[in-house]
Amino acid sequence: MKASLDCIPCFIRQALEAARLASTHSAVHEGILREVLRWAVEMDMDQPPPVMGQRIHRQLRKIVGIEDPYRDVKDRQNRMALTLIPDLKTQIMAAANPLVTALRIAIAGNVIDMGVNGNVSESLVRESLNQALTEPFEGDWKGFCSAVAEAQSILYLTDNAGEIAFDRLLIEQLGPARVTVAVRGAPVINDATMADALAVGLHEIVEIIDNGSDAPGTLLDECSQEFRQRFIQADLILAKGQGNFETLSEDERNIFLLFKAKCPVIASHVGLPVGTYVLARSRAGFPQTGLSRP
Amino acid sequence: MKASLDCIPCFIRQALEAARLASTHSAVHEGILREVLRWAVEMDMDQPPPVMGQRIHRQLRKIVGIEDPYRDVKDRQNRMALTLIPDLKTQIMAAANPLVTALRIAIAGNVIDMGVNGNVSESLVRESLNQALTEPFEGDWKGFCSAVAEAQSILYLTDNAGEIAFDRLLIEQLGPARVTVAVRGAPVINDATMADALAVGLHEIVEIIDNGSDAPGTLLDECSQEFRQRFIQADLILAKGQGNFETLSEDERNIFLLFKAKCPVIASHVGLPVGTYVLARSRAGFPQTGLSRP
Repeated sequence: MKASLDCIPCFIRQALEAARLASTHSAVHEGILREVLRWAVEMDMDQPPPVMGQRIHRQLRKIVGIEDPYRDVKDRQNRMALTLIPDLKTQIMAAANPLVTALRIAIAGNVIDMGVNGNVSESLVRESLNQALTEPFEGDWKGFCSAVAEAQSILYLTDNAGEIAFDRLLIEQLGPARVTVAVRGAPVINDATMADALAVGLHEIVEIIDNGSDAPGTLLDECSQEFRQRFIQADLILAKGQGNFETLSEDERNIFLLFKAKCPVIASHVGLPVGTYVLARSRAGFPQTGLSRP
Repeated sequence: MKASLDCIPCFIRQALEAARLASTHSAVHEGILREVLRWAVEMDMDQPPPVMGQRIHRQLRKIVGIEDPYRDVKDRQNRMALTLIPDLKTQIMAAANPLVTALRIAIAGNVIDMGVNGNVSESLVRESLNQALTEPFEGDWKGFCSAVAEAQSILYLTDNAGEIAFDRLLIEQLGPARVTVAVRGAPVINDATMADALAVGLHEIVEIIDNGSDAPGTLLDECSQEFRQRFIQADLILAKGQGNFETLSEDERNIFLLFKAKCPVIASHVGLPVGTYVLARSRAGFPQTGLSRP
């Protein structure tokens, strides 16, 4: 999807938040802010929002001279998510439909998004889990279950650190043998990289690849040859998060997009209120008509 | 007070909201947004925020070719506020301290601020009134009562349309004979101009002047000679709203600043949470120490 004019003030705010997280020097904050403003003047509104996000965070890393300014935050988010896992496993095992319960949990985990909310607490994550497990969610979950039943190979595109621990629960239900997990190729915001996949033990159950890119989404043209091949060959792709929605929602492959609609632009794009837990399909039109609720 | 880096994304958002209110053409929205971004790159952070607000809204009026794009909104806000007045008058008459009750109501009215919240409903105003009348508020209200008792002449600087109806209730308690009301010299956002003072009947009880400026605050250097004279001569100045706080808080004259702290930058500046109803003094240090609560 194309960026909206509303993305611009949000990018400016994000850039400032990111600068403050990466450096304590106000001159650095101001420098990054003014640079992002300069780009925004000329911004190509036909690009999806993660193109701007990628540019902001590349510049940020360059100015502060730190390869992964969110490393500590991501470590904390992984640890926090891991403490919730035993209880969630029990809930999945006791559920009438473990696959759909794990799906809900994986979507709830998408609340851990530093691009939208710089300060995600454990209580916010718990609240999100409670909501996701009890409230109706929007999407063709029956279609999801059928697609999962039919797929020989599933490519699972992760989004954020912390969230990736919840993804593991869904992958366990999918049957790890046919799943490949793809993380970002390099640090950007709190998006999960190989280090996060290892931190939550995904390597114990599935093959993990990286996509070769530092965009906070999936810009296929920028991804590695290996990733693109896996992407084309997969029977089914599950893509987590707003960034993947923004970059893949118009793709014609068999993609389910799992995310929490956290910003008004995306919520309006899918025709649902901000805060909705969404299971959408690429190119299949969203919101799904004839929503069925598990 | 100087602008903060946080003011910049907020200005960009405000500019976009204002553009959408003033025009239905997306090319206009984009044009204004890109122009504001261009200024923001070079923005002088030593200026108070209303300097940027003034510039944005001048440009907006020029592009859309409408002298007062918020006229309809302001008319609606005045009508909405006037419907609440009879009940509020009854409450003031029944109050133990009518002056302080009217003060609370006048501060509550400051919620009607299109710069911060583009969509102020009657229920939001009612909620604000309830809060302001029941919750403790921050400020030296005893000092306020003493200053009022001593002043021979009071200059009352209004902020927004709608709110100005509540200001009338406070002015009635102050004793209108010694009060002069000053409105903005030309339209900017939903700030009250002479038309709004007349709409709520202020001319029936006090002399009204305008300040000769179209800034959403009081930039003294830009105000008319007449206004500046009144400003210097007044024993006591009451100034409503964040814009007046931003431009007058460092002034050495005897100014009480009455506003709701609606943005994080100002809230942090006065050391109080967002949403607090504030009665501050210029140059007297804020928050007031030894807060007394009516």
